[in-house]
Amino acid sequence: MAGVASRGVFVTLEGVDGCGKSTQVGVLADALEAAGVPCLRLREPGGTAIGEKVRAILLDPANDEMAAECELLLYEASRAQLVRQVVEPALAAGKVVVCDRFCDSTYAYQAGGRGLDRGLVRRANELGTCGVVPDRTVLLDMDPAAALARATSGGADRLEAAGLALQERVRAAYRELADAEPGRVHMVDAAGTPEEVFARVVAELADLVPMLAAVTPEAPHVR
Amino acid sequence: MAGVASRGVFVTLEGVDGCGKSTQVGVLADALEAAGVPCLRLREPGGTAIGEKVRAILLDPANDEMAAECELLLYEASRAQLVRQVVEPALAAGKVVVCDRFCDSTYAYQAGGRGLDRGLVRRANELGTCGVVPDRTVLLDMDPAAALARATSGGADRLEAAGLALQERVRAAYRELADAEPGRVHMVDAAGTPEEVFARVVAELADLVPMLAAVTPEAPHVR
Repeated sequence: MAGVASRGVFVTLEGVDGCGKSTQVGVLADALEAAGVPCLRLREPGGTAIGEKVRAILLDPANDEMAAECELLLYEASRAQLVRQVVEPALAAGKVVVCDRFCDSTYAYQAGGRGLDRGLVRRANELGTCGVVPDRTVLLDMDPAAALARATSGGADRLEAAGLALQERVRAAYRELADAEPGRVHMVDAAGTPEEVFARVVAELADLVPMLAAVTPEAPHVR
Repeated sequence: MAGVASRGVFVTLEGVDGCGKSTQVGVLADALEAAGVPCLRLREPGGTAIGEKVRAILLDPANDEMAAECELLLYEASRAQLVRQVVEPALAAGKVVVCDRFCDSTYAYQAGGRGLDRGLVRRANELGTCGVVPDRTVLLDMDPAAALARATSGGADRLEAAGLALQERVRAAYRELADAEPGRVHMVDAAGTPEEVFARVVAELADLVPMLAAVTPEAPHVR
């Protein structure tokens, strides 16, 4: 617990739409609280009063003329506010911060999905994170078609198929990150029940937050 | 006029608060129109529907918890939208675009005035400008105390004196840019009447927009 006591631990969950990320963030935060670990759950974009105002601009359908670079920089502005106002103080207080999406989403969706220059997105992420990199990122890897089928309980129509091609590129970009930063980005199979997936998530976090192991003795390969 | 006809000319005016920038932008745009030069006058931040929404966040006193990095990225987001939606199309249409403040304001105020890392601000500017650099930037150089006295028609109180120290740093950062990029950033003395200053501004633009010379025969050293 030395790491937790001295500085906190910053954990992010990532993955394509429908991979079960938000469910796992909730289960993880509940498990940490049950284990008595001070914890903060966050969701991007938003998470601060200023970030919510930025999020409203990002999500307003009236803003359909938004340039890709403007969108990218708005995500990063909201992120910088979250980091400075919430993440850094929580880490300084020794908390485990669990964030549903962070800089890797920007890379996967803006560079992978939308085709923005990868170097450009990387440089934007450096600014938006204020240099605060997650200690561990769990990538919930899943075939986007399976994720879509699970999310919609049915087949994909033409519109969804277009979205599917984008999600395939997003998945590929996420995998690039797992390859490039194996120490930070740990990929787990997102197929199966929430309980099965959670055991895999815990296994990838147990070295950083050992108290997690206590709440899930059935985890298959806790380090 | 080859440059204007083929791509337009991008001109920005910069300087400390009270240096007479906005007056000169107005006079310059009027002169261009009088000379029959297609022209567009802009003002940062804002200039687009999305940019105005971002500007409202930047200027709302309720947002006093805003982190310096968030503020920087919001300025850049607004700028990227202005560049993609307004500046690039106007330049492609062959217009002279005259902008009251642009990326150099961010450098002067955020790096010089507020002390953000200069490299950080430079990298943010690269993202926000989308690589669209002004063809010429006229820096209206003025002693901030003189600018303040002119703007307020009187002496500076304690609050204004605090602002004055910031404006001194802003002026110094502007001068760094003029030293570093002498081909682009041309410094002129902002003291004197609007007519006297305008003659100096025209002199620094005449090589890019030769038709300007016709409207100000009294300009002292048109190139």
